[in-house]
Amino acid sequence: MEEAMMTGTCPVSSLVHKQILLGHGSGGKLTHELIEKLFRPALLPPGEEALNDATVFTVGASRLCLTTDSFVVDPLFFPGGDIGKLAVHGTINDLAVTGARPMVLSAAFILEEGLAMHELERIVSSMKAACEEAGVAIITGDTKVVNRGKCDKVFITTAGVGVIDHPGVCIAANNAQVGDVVIINGDIAAHGMAIMSARGEFEFETPILSDTAPLHTLVKAVLDSGASVHCMRDLTRGGLASALNELAAASAVGIEIEEEQISMQEEVKGACEILGLEPLHVANEGKLIAIVAPQDAQRVLQAMQSNQYGRQASCIGHVVAERPGLVTMKTPIGGQRIIPMLAGEQLPRIC
Amino acid sequence: MEEAMMTGTCPVSSLVHKQILLGHGSGGKLTHELIEKLFRPALLPPGEEALNDATVFTVGASRLCLTTDSFVVDPLFFPGGDIGKLAVHGTINDLAVTGARPMVLSAAFILEEGLAMHELERIVSSMKAACEEAGVAIITGDTKVVNRGKCDKVFITTAGVGVIDHPGVCIAANNAQVGDVVIINGDIAAHGMAIMSARGEFEFETPILSDTAPLHTLVKAVLDSGASVHCMRDLTRGGLASALNELAAASAVGIEIEEEQISMQEEVKGACEILGLEPLHVANEGKLIAIVAPQDAQRVLQAMQSNQYGRQASCIGHVVAERPGLVTMKTPIGGQRIIPMLAGEQLPRIC
Repeated sequence: MEEAMMTGTCPVSSLVHKQILLGHGSGGKLTHELIEKLFRPALLPPGEEALNDATVFTVGASRLCLTTDSFVVDPLFFPGGDIGKLAVHGTINDLAVTGARPMVLSAAFILEEGLAMHELERIVSSMKAACEEAGVAIITGDTKVVNRGKCDKVFITTAGVGVIDHPGVCIAANNAQVGDVVIINGDIAAHGMAIMSARGEFEFETPILSDTAPLHTLVKAVLDSGASVHCMRDLTRGGLASALNELAAASAVGIEIEEEQISMQEEVKGACEILGLEPLHVANEGKLIAIVAPQDAQRVLQAMQSNQYGRQASCIGHVVAERPGLVTMKTPIGGQRIIPMLAGEQLPRIC
Repeated sequence: MEEAMMTGTCPVSSLVHKQILLGHGSGGKLTHELIEKLFRPALLPPGEEALNDATVFTVGASRLCLTTDSFVVDPLFFPGGDIGKLAVHGTINDLAVTGARPMVLSAAFILEEGLAMHELERIVSSMKAACEEAGVAIITGDTKVVNRGKCDKVFITTAGVGVIDHPGVCIAANNAQVGDVVIINGDIAAHGMAIMSARGEFEFETPILSDTAPLHTLVKAVLDSGASVHCMRDLTRGGLASALNELAAASAVGIEIEEEQISMQEEVKGACEILGLEPLHVANEGKLIAIVAPQDAQRVLQAMQSNQYGRQASCIGHVVAERPGLVTMKTPIGGQRIIPMLAGEQLPRIC
């Protein structure tokens, strides 16, 4: 084993940075470099598509999905949510956007010595409420405690297993087709700005609430409509821009979006301006995009709008043959600009 | 949701401690108090047995298991293993002792800004080697980065899904029967002492290697033998003593073990003496106990001894009707003493 360890096949030399940077956790360029150059070659089975939110495996005739996410959000509590709610929703949503019905979750806690018990109790109560609302159960868990100063209060890692009930479902990052329509289920950037306001970065009269929400019933409505969904992605770290870039790159297509079709709450827009942040790069926790065949766009829109988390759903763009791998945005005055994936890290510990 | 959070049904007042202590992560008494008084009432479905290492759920006709563990071991590298190998083995073993064949794993990394890339590469290579040796695959993952000083280099959380292939398997913590035999697959306490030696707590001429190992082929051999296994438990945090106490309590039986039957390497024994540690409370990562009907004991022993991780398997005790919930040990000179569950925390961050 020691030998195997020392002669592992990781492409050691191809990673540019010799140390981990905050940007390696951004969900943007550096995260992808780490996945593509280290984790994927070492760990994933050949041919496995690393960029999907959850990975499909089969048991008998059933197609199941497994996903995991760690949550390190700071602060633990923020307007509209907390780390526990986020951990439940995040895993539900990763399963949902793969077309799976969430079945069971696990939750592993890393706690800092000295954490106030009432804070942990509040987090666990919130997880309970989130599970009950979503109709899923946490069936197993783990607790580790590290010495004071060796973590930051609480980190939670959830994993989840879901089952793909709809027989024809084939949602994958590399499945976008020229001519497809890009649909989003609502306004963007609220989660990131809720965290920034909880950090005291700015103050508005109307508080900005995180959009954290479980999206599995919305996805079920979309799949029940009979639409053929080619790609689906929840818009977390790295925001709308990073998700679109991932899909454009994986599918080797261009994606054109229209600025006028992308909505934001006024306070969110104002906060992004104050902080100098690009809203397209800001994290969401209750938003997804679906990329669907044009003849299915209308029924997907209607299905989303019939769900409480999709009332404001709208078409925001199209998949094109031009500029494969790139995302471009048309501005209201007729201009067009390239929307890159997030580089570096603008908002550490947003989830 | 806010309301639900504030009126959650957690029994806030019944937890004695108002802050998280290191002992809450020990795998001993305080961990169980946290599970029983906070996590289980809030999160687990009614009737779910919180104390099993993995939890069974069904998909169609298949019985699957889900498990998760966070790894925060310090140091990251130690004689015989490292955090990555431990994370893979720990999840494989939790599935195995539930009678499940490990199918797929997930791995979520929490990284500290500034971590040397070559350390992460070495860990990932080690996970790859451990997966290859065990014939399992990590199919999905996540990476978060926190600011310098907000975690300690690397924490890894693995989750795993397994399938129970053997139709009659019913391994559960509350299933020990009076008359059953307790069988262990080898010597104890090597992992904990390997970590202590890596921390420079003592020095011997012969280095102590962690016993970390994947036990799923050993468990398969046991189940293939046709033996009816009542309980199985891997002996990690809290050691042999805590595992026996959990099973005695859950099954409302007494367990009597014989000191002479419990083996230890000479160096491990010496190290425990130097540090004043009770070897029965020291963590292992490649050891398990099986509690089986007396008529099956011989074939379980043989099955274990036929496997590379069970050559030294032996019977160490029996399940008795007397003193339900307690574990007692007969000493070589004919005495008998009660072996309690680990109280407090003797070795923080052992896994």
